Amino acid sequence: MKNAEELFFEFLRFPSVSTDPSRSGEMLRCAEWTSALLESYGFESSLMPTAGQPAVVARWHGQPGAPTALVYGHYDVQPAEPLELWESPPFEPVVREGRVYARGATDNKGQILAHILGIGERLRKDGKLPVNVTFLIEGEEEIGSPNLNPLLQQHPDLFRCDVAVVSDTGMIGPGIPTLTYGLRGICCLEVELTGPAGDLHSGIYGGAVQNPATALARLLATLHDAEGRILVKGFYDEVRELHDWEREGWAQLPIGDEQVREWTGVGELHGETGYNSLERVWARPTVEINGMAAGYQGEGTKTIIPSRAMAKLSCRLVPNQTAQATAKLMEAHLREHAPPGVALKVTVQHGGEAYWLDPRSGWGLAAQQALRRCFDKEPALICEGGSVPIVQSFKTTLGADTLLLGLALPDANLHAPNENFPLENFRVGQKLTCLLLDELSETRS
Amino acid sequence: MKNAEELFFEFLRFPSVSTDPSRSGEMLRCAEWTSALLESYGFESSLMPTAGQPAVVARWHGQPGAPTALVYGHYDVQPAEPLELWESPPFEPVVREGRVYARGATDNKGQILAHILGIGERLRKDGKLPVNVTFLIEGEEEIGSPNLNPLLQQHPDLFRCDVAVVSDTGMIGPGIPTLTYGLRGICCLEVELTGPAGDLHSGIYGGAVQNPATALARLLATLHDAEGRILVKGFYDEVRELHDWEREGWAQLPIGDEQVREWTGVGELHGETGYNSLERVWARPTVEINGMAAGYQGEGTKTIIPSRAMAKLSCRLVPNQTAQATAKLMEAHLREHAPPGVALKVTVQHGGEAYWLDPRSGWGLAAQQALRRCFDKEPALICEGGSVPIVQSFKTTLGADTLLLGLALPDANLHAPNENFPLENFRVGQKLTCLLLDELSETRS
Repeated sequence: MKNAEELFFEFLRFPSVSTDPSRSGEMLRCAEWTSALLESYGFESSLMPTAGQPAVVARWHGQPGAPTALVYGHYDVQPAEPLELWESPPFEPVVREGRVYARGATDNKGQILAHILGIGERLRKDGKLPVNVTFLIEGEEEIGSPNLNPLLQQHPDLFRCDVAVVSDTGMIGPGIPTLTYGLRGICCLEVELTGPAGDLHSGIYGGAVQNPATALARLLATLHDAEGRILVKGFYDEVRELHDWEREGWAQLPIGDEQVREWTGVGELHGETGYNSLERVWARPTVEINGMAAGYQGEGTKTIIPSRAMAKLSCRLVPNQTAQATAKLMEAHLREHAPPGVALKVTVQHGGEAYWLDPRSGWGLAAQQALRRCFDKEPALICEGGSVPIVQSFKTTLGADTLLLGLALPDANLHAPNENFPLENFRVGQKLTCLLLDELSETRS
Repeated sequence: MKNAEELFFEFLRFPSVSTDPSRSGEMLRCAEWTSALLESYGFESSLMPTAGQPAVVARWHGQPGAPTALVYGHYDVQPAEPLELWESPPFEPVVREGRVYARGATDNKGQILAHILGIGERLRKDGKLPVNVTFLIEGEEEIGSPNLNPLLQQHPDLFRCDVAVVSDTGMIGPGIPTLTYGLRGICCLEVELTGPAGDLHSGIYGGAVQNPATALARLLATLHDAEGRILVKGFYDEVRELHDWEREGWAQLPIGDEQVREWTGVGELHGETGYNSLERVWARPTVEINGMAAGYQGEGTKTIIPSRAMAKLSCRLVPNQTAQATAKLMEAHLREHAPPGVALKVTVQHGGEAYWLDPRSGWGLAAQQALRRCFDKEPALICEGGSVPIVQSFKTTLGADTLLLGLALPDANLHAPNENFPLENFRVGQKLTCLLLDELSETRS
């Protein structure tokens, strides 16, 4: 019988890079290995084909009447490049100062394997679990989970659950139990302004026509006031204000403005008046310019009036905004403020809703209690500013809330060279997952 | 003895593309051909080496006491690509409907050859000219004349003159004698705003830091008011207002707003209130964005806060602005209005002064009289919105004013496929240049 660490190293040695077609053989072997491991513990496990990489689905449903937990993770990893920046080969895991270094160590092999081992050993030992468990371990998370939602939709009975458990978020620091209870939504748009039929000589025509780049700058400048508050009419109408307990809780966290300044490397922070950095990122919506292009961008000068100018925008959304309504407000604003002399084109791109699980709800309290018992410490209740689309899928397709109990550390080097995961977190994860099942068994939403 | 048209075709057959190193042999043969032609008429002619392509310099200074005219042109041409868009090969001239089609037909071989032939035949016939003439025909105009100013500076006596004559501008329409008496200057700057140390995830950090692209848009939006008037403090202080005779003269021209709208292909014109298109382009300064770049510009979305954002700006200047003072005003404005949370870098690039020769001056009246006699029609007095750096060189290095008597038509396809020059303009050019020498002989600045 292999021990936990040996299994972890075996899992990490598969170069299961989902974006690389030459790795499809390794992808399949990694999925088979995962499925076999789950089967060895007593789960009914199989590979479910998708239009892309297969998903590992393993079930133990021996507690009729008890809640069902869907434990989600992924066996695929990001590419390891640039290889020369790794201190040890990315697919040959080594331990240095208590951390395992390898691609996928934290994201997500270390975390999902902790779930498998924790729950699996419990099942082997007791012959049963306190709740019904379905593992769903996909192979396409790092390429945007294109086939996950279809899979859920095609097999609603198979994946039916009361709550989902996902360990793909972070802890705010080593040894600090962390429950992520909110995520922002997103709404992306592309804006294009077209003026002259082609680029014009800025001498021959400059002054007589609207410059699309100037018009774009003027249009984008209408989106915020000088303090960063969004000026789009109706944008804040549905925004849920922060609860006092959220503000107070976040103020107690060992992270804040100074850390955000350090992590971003900015000279000074900047944002909406009346909110600190964590509040701005976790609880306030944004309109950001993700990209902007017009005319000549090379070395030196080229004195033209560009024919067109483009900007890519994304709004981050909070409860109770919706992506669809936000796109409409944005488009109306852009149309109203578009300068004369140019034609405006707005393309609405992808969108997704914000997620918020009240940590004072049944599932929320169960998660907190598990964290408290595991770490013997009061858990940090946080939100994240990004989006996790699968969480939205679980909500809309399966009707299930998600508990985000991530074990990633801030310096885990996710998606970067020298990704790592503390063996301590790997052990804690196995314990936490069992405690969570116990708590869930006594919870009804 | 070859006739004028045969010589024109020979000249056009040299693929004298200055930007293409593989054409250096053809460049030299073209220069030698030009020099030999001038010598055949009785000029003392030679190739003067530069750090790049040689210049053809030919002199006849047989009228001590009479004014000296420097006739400038260039024997190099733009590349002919894209070749597939030419109706006949670019270096095999053909005549269709009275126009010669070939690369360089208008820019500048047809125009400078008209000068050479007109003046040369006169010298051969009369054995003398009414004024002293120096031809300066360079081989690097299409790559920015990098070695022209050094050549002038190294040989001030050789190039000393009372007035320069340049045919590298246009006529406002077929058969309309045109004197270009003003050109705008230029002042180029690059602006860069830097915020975070690297691109940031717009979810994880969006809201807490200044977005450099948003900051750039806000900064660029401070440059103009909604009607296009420049808001940079002091920008208009030195600007010479239009003379009434200029406004009145331009209002009589057969071109105006409707043509500018057509040529540019815009839906509607846009510019400084109180001025029409010709006035905006010929007599008013501008600040244009020539290029703009930030973050992600590819297909789809990438939800980042870009680390930096950049814009390339150019101001077109009118009398009596200077490039240096304008750069200072621009930089002061950008510094004053730079949003918080980003670092501003302003790089001043190249600049050049506006040019304005009073058409009521001695040289201006001489040019008008030559045009009037040649075309038997009142000349159009126009300005151009672009810059012609050599004109500024003649002024600052040689102290000479320039007469811009271009023969290019609006549909000459300069720098484009199917460049052409009417044989009529080629003939008129030979006549005009002789009439001009006669007029100049009776003029003293």
